[in-house]
Amino acid sequence: MNAVLMRCVAVLAAMLLQASAWAAEPLPSWQDGPSRKAIIAFVESTTRAGSADFVPEPQRIATFDNDGTLWAEQPVYFQMFFLMDRVRATAAQRPQLKDTDPTRSIMAGDIQGALASGEKGLLELMAATHSGMSVDEFHAQVLEWSEHARHPGTQRRFTDMTYQPMRELLDYLRAHGYTTYIVSGGGQEFMRPWAAQTYGIPPQQVIGSYGELAYRLRDGIPTLIKLAEVGLVDDHAGKPVAIQRFIGRRPVFAFGNSDGDLEMLQWTAAGPGPRFVGLVHHTDGKREWAYDRASKIGTLDKALAAAAAGNWVVVDMKSEWKQVYPDR
Amino acid sequence: MNAVLMRCVAVLAAMLLQASAWAAEPLPSWQDGPSRKAIIAFVESTTRAGSADFVPEPQRIATFDNDGTLWAEQPVYFQMFFLMDRVRATAAQRPQLKDTDPTRSIMAGDIQGALASGEKGLLELMAATHSGMSVDEFHAQVLEWSEHARHPGTQRRFTDMTYQPMRELLDYLRAHGYTTYIVSGGGQEFMRPWAAQTYGIPPQQVIGSYGELAYRLRDGIPTLIKLAEVGLVDDHAGKPVAIQRFIGRRPVFAFGNSDGDLEMLQWTAAGPGPRFVGLVHHTDGKREWAYDRASKIGTLDKALAAAAAGNWVVVDMKSEWKQVYPDR
Repeated sequence: MNAVLMRCVAVLAAMLLQASAWAAEPLPSWQDGPSRKAIIAFVESTTRAGSADFVPEPQRIATFDNDGTLWAEQPVYFQMFFLMDRVRATAAQRPQLKDTDPTRSIMAGDIQGALASGEKGLLELMAATHSGMSVDEFHAQVLEWSEHARHPGTQRRFTDMTYQPMRELLDYLRAHGYTTYIVSGGGQEFMRPWAAQTYGIPPQQVIGSYGELAYRLRDGIPTLIKLAEVGLVDDHAGKPVAIQRFIGRRPVFAFGNSDGDLEMLQWTAAGPGPRFVGLVHHTDGKREWAYDRASKIGTLDKALAAAAAGNWVVVDMKSEWKQVYPDR
Repeated sequence: MNAVLMRCVAVLAAMLLQASAWAAEPLPSWQDGPSRKAIIAFVESTTRAGSADFVPEPQRIATFDNDGTLWAEQPVYFQMFFLMDRVRATAAQRPQLKDTDPTRSIMAGDIQGALASGEKGLLELMAATHSGMSVDEFHAQVLEWSEHARHPGTQRRFTDMTYQPMRELLDYLRAHGYTTYIVSGGGQEFMRPWAAQTYGIPPQQVIGSYGELAYRLRDGIPTLIKLAEVGLVDDHAGKPVAIQRFIGRRPVFAFGNSDGDLEMLQWTAAGPGPRFVGLVHHTDGKREWAYDRASKIGTLDKALAAAAAGNWVVVDMKSEWKQVYPDR
């Protein structure tokens, strides 16, 4: 009984704190523009008892892409910086690769050279550097990197290049009974170690691309070993497939920023009843980056056309976000 | 604000109802034997603030096998009855199979004959009858079956052959902040349609074997189609692999009943800090079935030895359960 009462008090306290935070100003880093208004109108109409658009709490599933939607993705997806870090740390074990691309470019810190050497070599390096260790060991490598590595342009930690307005949106949705998921092309085990602290999203709500795992007794101890074999590429049509596999329910709220998110957004929009579909449009070349159709990273072309046709919400980062990154 | 207050009141009301239910008698269908005592001692010590064994709520992950652990599994896994139902319903579309086994035996209602015809033919029938339709259409078939089909021995609905003591255990764990998962060799999409109502377990916490899915536009409408290709066999070493893939955290509490659960139980037991590992032992030939080492379905041999070596809790169904199935 004590445990129940304590949990109850804790829940109440958290709710009252949250309530006072909203009373102050919901989504404070958003200008009071069309996107903020649309978000608040949707959340209120789907959570107000008696509303025609009311959505019961178990069905309040919200899915977010990560790269370019919750954190930045230029000049390359941030997992590539982790990959380069791992290549440099383990190059001594791969002497035969040191004089060939992409390893040579990576060792020289030449991102564009590494990219120019082609996708195949990079995917092989990805498989090689992300496998062979236990999941726990891999998590430790990611955490160490996320704490110390800096973005070459901003000199910020990569987790400090998450978007403050989107973090507020995650909090706002959760405070209204939504369950928030990441559905990203990035590696699931690459995101899990820092997603809880950074986004408030626990590991079971972090869905991403993943490799196969092997269960083995290592020195008699049960261990899960990461293998090089790809299990799921959680991009394009892989996203609705992963949503069904992991969640088993169609989202009522989804946010992306690129053509890789199109199928997730279509799948969300096609459900019955109220649906919210949003795109982050990177329009701020000064505070962040400005790109869409012509960019190789985060190409936004077909999804932008679909947004216009489907009346999806397109966030103009430059005019709608008061602040891009969190204050440090 | 109104929404917050309403949620708060609802949470409070649910907690008080729950609290009064426990005050009456926790786990009422369990005899006050060693298993019930061990469960209550573990849950209290891991959830009481200040306890040396306290486990923070996000880490309170409990995983349960389904066949033989949450519901019965004799004379064959219940999904086999669904398979037979589907074969009979669709035999007209497969005239070339009607005169060969296992279809011939299934059409004649001869389970043992179907089983005797070999695993390969049954797996092919499983793939054939569980694919080609949308996930929604498959769910409708499962729901229709679960509402109308009857077990040939007990004449009960299959969902009425879930174990009342285990359903109480799921409730008891959740009331103490545990998140309950199914981790079953059975089909994920076969369990999801009825698991929420029967066990209180929502689709995102139902992990099982699954086939691949294809995202397609069918008459212009985004649709997820079930394919015959196997994605994961969630049995033996597949269970800890699935736990990492879906949950990303090691359980602190796990329950199974057969050697197919051994790796999940080992993986759970090997974690640091307090861990509860339990086995349902089918010892009640009168109210249910009595079987272990020699049974082809739900073989319990190596896991029973591991339980003895590891001091796991082994539930003697005959002496420890006052009631097996729910009252109807």
